[in-house]
This record gives sequence, structure tokens and C-alpha cells, in this order.
Amino acid sequence: MELWYTEKQTPTYGITAKIKETYVSEQTEFQKLDMIETEEFGTMLVLDGMVMTTDKDEFVYHEMVAHPVLYTHPNAKKVLVVGGGDGGVIREILKHPSVEKAVLVDIDGKVIEYSKKYLPNIACGLDDPRVEVIVNDGFMHIHDHKNEYDVVMVDSTEPVGPAVNLFTRGFYQGIYDSLKEDGIFVAQTDNPWFTPDLISSVNRDVKEVFPIVRVFWANVPTYPSGLWTFTMGSKKYDPLEVDESSIPEIDTKYYSPRLHKAAFVLPKFVEDLVK
Amino acid sequence: MELWYTEKQTPTYGITAKIKETYVSEQTEFQKLDMIETEEFGTMLVLDGMVMTTDKDEFVYHEMVAHPVLYTHPNAKKVLVVGGGDGGVIREILKHPSVEKAVLVDIDGKVIEYSKKYLPNIACGLDDPRVEVIVNDGFMHIHDHKNEYDVVMVDSTEPVGPAVNLFTRGFYQGIYDSLKEDGIFVAQTDNPWFTPDLISSVNRDVKEVFPIVRVFWANVPTYPSGLWTFTMGSKKYDPLEVDESSIPEIDTKYYSPRLHKAAFVLPKFVEDLVK
Repeated sequence: MELWYTEKQTPTYGITAKIKETYVSEQTEFQKLDMIETEEFGTMLVLDGMVMTTDKDEFVYHEMVAHPVLYTHPNAKKVLVVGGGDGGVIREILKHPSVEKAVLVDIDGKVIEYSKKYLPNIACGLDDPRVEVIVNDGFMHIHDHKNEYDVVMVDSTEPVGPAVNLFTRGFYQGIYDSLKEDGIFVAQTDNPWFTPDLISSVNRDVKEVFPIVRVFWANVPTYPSGLWTFTMGSKKYDPLEVDESSIPEIDTKYYSPRLHKAAFVLPKFVEDLVK
Repeated sequence: MELWYTEKQTPTYGITAKIKETYVSEQTEFQKLDMIETEEFGTMLVLDGMVMTTDKDEFVYHEMVAHPVLYTHPNAKKVLVVGGGDGGVIREILKHPSVEKAVLVDIDGKVIEYSKKYLPNIACGLDDPRVEVIVNDGFMHIHDHKNEYDVVMVDSTEPVGPAVNLFTRGFYQGIYDSLKEDGIFVAQTDNPWFTPDLISSVNRDVKEVFPIVRVFWANVPTYPSGLWTFTMGSKKYDPLEVDESSIPEIDTKYYSPRLHKAAFVLPKFVEDLVK
């Protein structure tokens, strides 16, 4: 029997991948969680029917959440990751010697548990002594921690299910308050081909809260359209004013010092969405 | 009845799109040609089971074949398009006032015929007085025209079927000979996620023929992985030495003067493939 997993990325378009094995398929307290072994992309984590990460292309997303913002902040010591229970962003954060503490707050402990078991190359940093893993609502955590973080990274699912509060102006204000006076945040902010209105509304909301707002992008093959955007909101430091020659060559497969600013140059139709 | 078109982009991975109607499904002299109406991407041209272009995302590919090279050459008057029977690249070429003549050579007259009928917004330039449309083998045309073109653009299918000769060192040498002494060529050169070896071998071959070789990329959602590469081979002009401030703002949706150089900054794993 041939089994194919199909994700409808829109009601009338999707991707489909042949699978070897289903490791997990369960309804957690918060969402449907599937962990499957695909032929093309290796192990794949699917939440509420949406691909979150795969062995083959995970490096793009995780590097691009972590490095552009950490090479914009000159000395990030304390970093918060909201969501990101698979641990991939944590793994990248730990490549930065300035970071003394990385806190991961995911609402769903099952994501953490199964990622450690089935995605060991992604989750490998979660047991590092610099990392604190908290199973809690990121919205609440941020509410309870003011003026504390140098950098906040929002590695959430799409704005449906448990992540719906993570795409609101109130959340961005909460992040602002949780950051120190020169803090920066970054969030994944979906794709412009299928959700152009979301890109525009998130951009408007973040601009109401942060003085410096920049959008960058990367190609993630298993995400809808393959063009994924990220939004950085900053109190002081501008990612476009970073001296690229000061960025070290670290062990990455997507991000590079050369790509730091180029990633902020958007296709024209995307530029128009965030004007 | 719900009909879905599925393209297996690899043996174990693909995209799938709900369709409203099939306009054409026939075996031409050279390839299988399907023209279908999809819900998400509008009209879609499929050759030998591979998506060539769609109403919704066609602008990316066509702009990125035409503009980076035409804004690198300071005064391109005579341009050749090999393949590209849908006319999208021709439409973009005609936005350049320097171009006096654009020759399109597609091996399959049926692609031209059906594109004019079903993709009028893409094929709209084919009847322009500056355009000559020739139904012939591009390989042969190039062989018969030496020292003639300022710019050659290869808008071919993948290296299977009728385009197999268009991914050989001999073809690149033929293009070199068909170009004037300061000529430049550009070709679509597939994606690095599923065909990394092709990217490397094409790059090696082009470097044996042209002194200046640069690879750039764009996001095309309906192409495998969404990351598409293009290779430029040039006798004299370097696209990275273009003064971006001299590029005019023309009517585009993807390309912009700001993107001209940024498109040449490759993700690190792609950089490594073309070192």
C-alpha cells in the first residue's frame, strides 16, 4: 500500500509526500500532532495538518529565525523563544557565545517530547545547561516578564488553533514590554502568495508598537508557496545597519553574512504589502 | 466530481491543484501539452507533466529571465529567446526601449498557438512588430547564427524530452558563438533542493565557456521547491557591477532595482554547489 500525506495549503492547492511510516498521530490537549517519516524530506512534524518542520529543510527556518536578529543585537544575553518546541531555533541560538540563557515556552509539552524522540538532530539543544524549557502559554509568560529579554523569537504555528493570540497587536505590545530597552523581536509571519492580507495587517500592527520594523524572507520548500516571511520589530538596532563584515562565518546551511541584508530585499509585490 | 492535478516533482513529492476545466490535453510532435484551469493559480500550462507557467505566478519567472540580464547589458538591441513559446519572456523584453528585435525560437508551435488562445496576458507580446517568432530547434538556430545577438535567454523545459540538448556544454558553446563580443546569456537552471548535481554540473560547464558566470534565484511557488535558479554567462559585463541606482523603476511585480544584486546572494548550501 502506498501512503501519501497531503497538506492542503489553501482549499484548492497543496503538497503531497509519500510516507514510509507514521510514528505518532494523536490529538494533544491543544492540537493534532502527527510525526511521519517521508521519503523526500525525512521525518516531518505536522501540527493541525500543517507541516512545521522536516529533517531535510528545517535548517532554513531555524537559522533564519535565530541569526538575523542575533547578529543585529550586539550583545544578546537572554533570549526567549515562544513556541518552537521542536528545539530547532534553540539549537541555532546556542551557536551564539553571547547568549547566557535561552528560555523556550511552548504551550504543548507533547511537541517537545516527540521532537526529542523523533527529531533528535533538531531537538539536540533542548538539554543544554543554558536552556530552560517551560510548558506554558507564551502569551501568559510574556505578560509576567517585563523588561527582561534582549531578544524574543516567536516560532509559532499559523494563526489558527493555539497560536491565534500570537498574531495580535496586544501580543506585540506584550513582547515590547517583555524586552529590555534595546530589545528586538522576530516572528514568522506567513507567506504573501496565499495570505497577503495577513502580511499587511501584521506589519501595520507591529509598526504601531515598534519604532524599527523590517521584513525579510527565505525559501522553505515545505511551507506554502516556498516563500516565507519574518518580521523584526526593534527598539534601537536596525538590522540593515549591521556591518556584514563583522558577522562571523558560523556553521550554517542557509544564513550567511552575505545574506544578512539581501534577505531584507523583498520581491516588489511583497514590498508593496508592507509599505 | 472533484478533479485535482498532481505533479510529482520528485518520485516521492509533489504539488496538487484543484482544477475547474481542462482546455487542452494532447500529445504534440514533441511533448505532452496540457492547458488547465486551476482554482488557485488560474490557467496553467503543463508540458510533459511539469508546470511551465500559471496566470498567478508567471511574472516571477518571466521578469527574472528578462530583466537582470537586460539591465546588465548596457545596450541590448537584438535578443534571442530559446523556448519560451508562451511569450512571457518576450512581454518583459519589450519593456526595454533599447531592444530593436526579439527573436523567439520554440521547437513546438503548439505551445505558441495554445498560449495565445488560453494565456493572452502572457502571450500578449508575440504579435509585436519587434518580435519574430520562429518554430524551430533552438540548438539548430543558434548553430546557424554566429556573432549576432546581444543577449540570449534560454527559457526551456527541464533537461528531459525536447530540451535535453539545452543542458550541455556544446549548447553553451553554441550560445557563446551566437553572441556578439560583449554578449550575455541567461538560462533557467532548475532547483538546488531536488537537483543539486544538475546545478553543479551546469555551473562547471558554463564556466568552461564564459569568463563571467553568476547564479541568481527567485521564488516561483509552482516550481519544485519554490527556489528557482538562473545562470548568467557573460563575455564582458558583470551583473554585480551594475549601478543599481541607474536601473529605472519599470512596471514589474517581482524584479526591482533593489533586488538586482540581492538576487545573486545565494543561500549558503546553494553557494556551495556553484563554488
